[in-house]
Amino acid sequence: MVHALSGSPGLAASRRPGDDGENVSNPHLIGLDWGTTACRAYLIGAGGEVLARVTDGPGILRVESGAFGAALDTMIAGWPALPMILSGMIGSRQGWKEAPYAHCPAATGDIVAALTRIEHAGRAIALVPGLSCENGGMPDVMRGEETQILGALEIAKQDGGVFLLPGTHSKWAGVTGGCIASFRTFMTGEVFGALKDHTILGRLMREGAPDADGFARGVRASTTLTSAGALLNRLFATRTYGLMNRLPDTALSDYLSGLLVGAEIAEATKQIENPVTIIASPALAHRYTEALKLLGHESALAPADCGAAGHWRIARAAGLC
Amino acid sequence: MVHALSGSPGLAASRRPGDDGENVSNPHLIGLDWGTTACRAYLIGAGGEVLARVTDGPGILRVESGAFGAALDTMIAGWPALPMILSGMIGSRQGWKEAPYAHCPAATGDIVAALTRIEHAGRAIALVPGLSCENGGMPDVMRGEETQILGALEIAKQDGGVFLLPGTHSKWAGVTGGCIASFRTFMTGEVFGALKDHTILGRLMREGAPDADGFARGVRASTTLTSAGALLNRLFATRTYGLMNRLPDTALSDYLSGLLVGAEIAEATKQIENPVTIIASPALAHRYTEALKLLGHESALAPADCGAAGHWRIARAAGLC
Repeated sequence: MVHALSGSPGLAASRRPGDDGENVSNPHLIGLDWGTTACRAYLIGAGGEVLARVTDGPGILRVESGAFGAALDTMIAGWPALPMILSGMIGSRQGWKEAPYAHCPAATGDIVAALTRIEHAGRAIALVPGLSCENGGMPDVMRGEETQILGALEIAKQDGGVFLLPGTHSKWAGVTGGCIASFRTFMTGEVFGALKDHTILGRLMREGAPDADGFARGVRASTTLTSAGALLNRLFATRTYGLMNRLPDTALSDYLSGLLVGAEIAEATKQIENPVTIIASPALAHRYTEALKLLGHESALAPADCGAAGHWRIARAAGLC
Repeated sequence: MVHALSGSPGLAASRRPGDDGENVSNPHLIGLDWGTTACRAYLIGAGGEVLARVTDGPGILRVESGAFGAALDTMIAGWPALPMILSGMIGSRQGWKEAPYAHCPAATGDIVAALTRIEHAGRAIALVPGLSCENGGMPDVMRGEETQILGALEIAKQDGGVFLLPGTHSKWAGVTGGCIASFRTFMTGEVFGALKDHTILGRLMREGAPDADGFARGVRASTTLTSAGALLNRLFATRTYGLMNRLPDTALSDYLSGLLVGAEIAEATKQIENPVTIIASPALAHRYTEALKLLGHESALAPADCGAAGHWRIARAAGLC
């Protein structure tokens, strides 16, 4: 599905391709943020603005037999033949072609130097490599988030800050001088889902409207956990609060979420400074904003379309457009 | 399946029912340790010894339409009509009849006072209530483990100690003067299963023989985790060590297990003293013994049949046999 756009904050006003007014920008680049479970495609103008987009493309795991070329053609059908740049898990071993990670600290130029090139239907495609780093002997990796972070910097005309990209695998990254210095992954979203759907904790849960009190109670409880093992114990409160009627069954899921999100934030903010810029969907950003506030941290929400702005920044630096 | 027995340490030598030697003990009690996924039934003699057993009875979730009476009759078919005592989740809301928890601190007498009675086919059955306690505002519960702990005390002729019952929901209990003073639940086993089977961490894992080095590396890594959130980060090493070929794919599962078991032990041993008595199957006991040793703690393994010894202790105190 192709959507016309409302304006993207910080980018030039967006326009539908095919408009003929004198301010219409010509399409210059196609960028895809192609992850495991979803893909977003952007038609990007000469100033970095998004002219059109596809928001419901299939993630790499949903592309049968790795037929990525055909999936790409379907997503961008009707768009002009332009240079293309792809970020995310499409550059992983399970994707179109493996694009080996660039290593932190990494600026735009380091990512450009590590772009992997492929050809499809006679057109050149650049794959963004993703980043790796190492913290205390533990390797860490990201694919796609680096592009969004560079885009957020681009839009805000900034060259530093702390960026949080919450989700299945939350990423916290520190940026200095336009360079992603290091980052850490927290499996918060995926652990939440596995516990909710595949342990006894889900048995007493009942779906309901988001319960802010239950969430806040979980966040506050996270501050009492002074060790990793304390989490393995406290998780069980999600069941005992239900058994003892100390939380409504519709609040148990939010309590568990607050406990995990709070634990993530407490650890991540030990090592990095305020304020935090959140790159996320509005619902998820709201949840983290609330938790950060409860734990005494300021945050701001990055504009939409950081991915496209990152594609444009990297492609321009690579001389692709 | 009914098994003849080898002797149970600390109990009188076991015999098959129907033996006619002069030392044969008459059956006095039938005890069932009836949990969520499995049931063990014991035919118990006048001295507390196990005369026969069923080890593969169905857990309460596998009994269709809650037909517990019929399932019981099948398990103990051929055994004499005797007083019966049932512990475990059979006394939960999802079991035969809810037996409200006794509250810690609780000695044998408190459990006896809270027994719930039912009748089946003209025979009286006592349901052990399980225990509840509260730690720092968090309620905790157990059903079945209290009976095993009382049995372990009975066999060893002791009235105190620290008991660890590892598993899906590990329990750590402190006992003083024959009284279970308090306990804590750690969801270690269930969290391990959910992460292994239902997150990206399982993708790179390959089954193999237990990898002691991978397990030890996980246990040692757990000592570096200074917060609950650090666990949400370090879990991801189970993937990145695989991606970067720093651990064999057959060791990843053991690394994850070591990380979680180590985190549990580090937290649990903050509040209780050495040595630890482990009540578990040999394989699980071995794993925890190794982890305790790596973390500087002594442990001993409780004899088999603690459950039956607990049934006998409670039933005798209740005047059932």
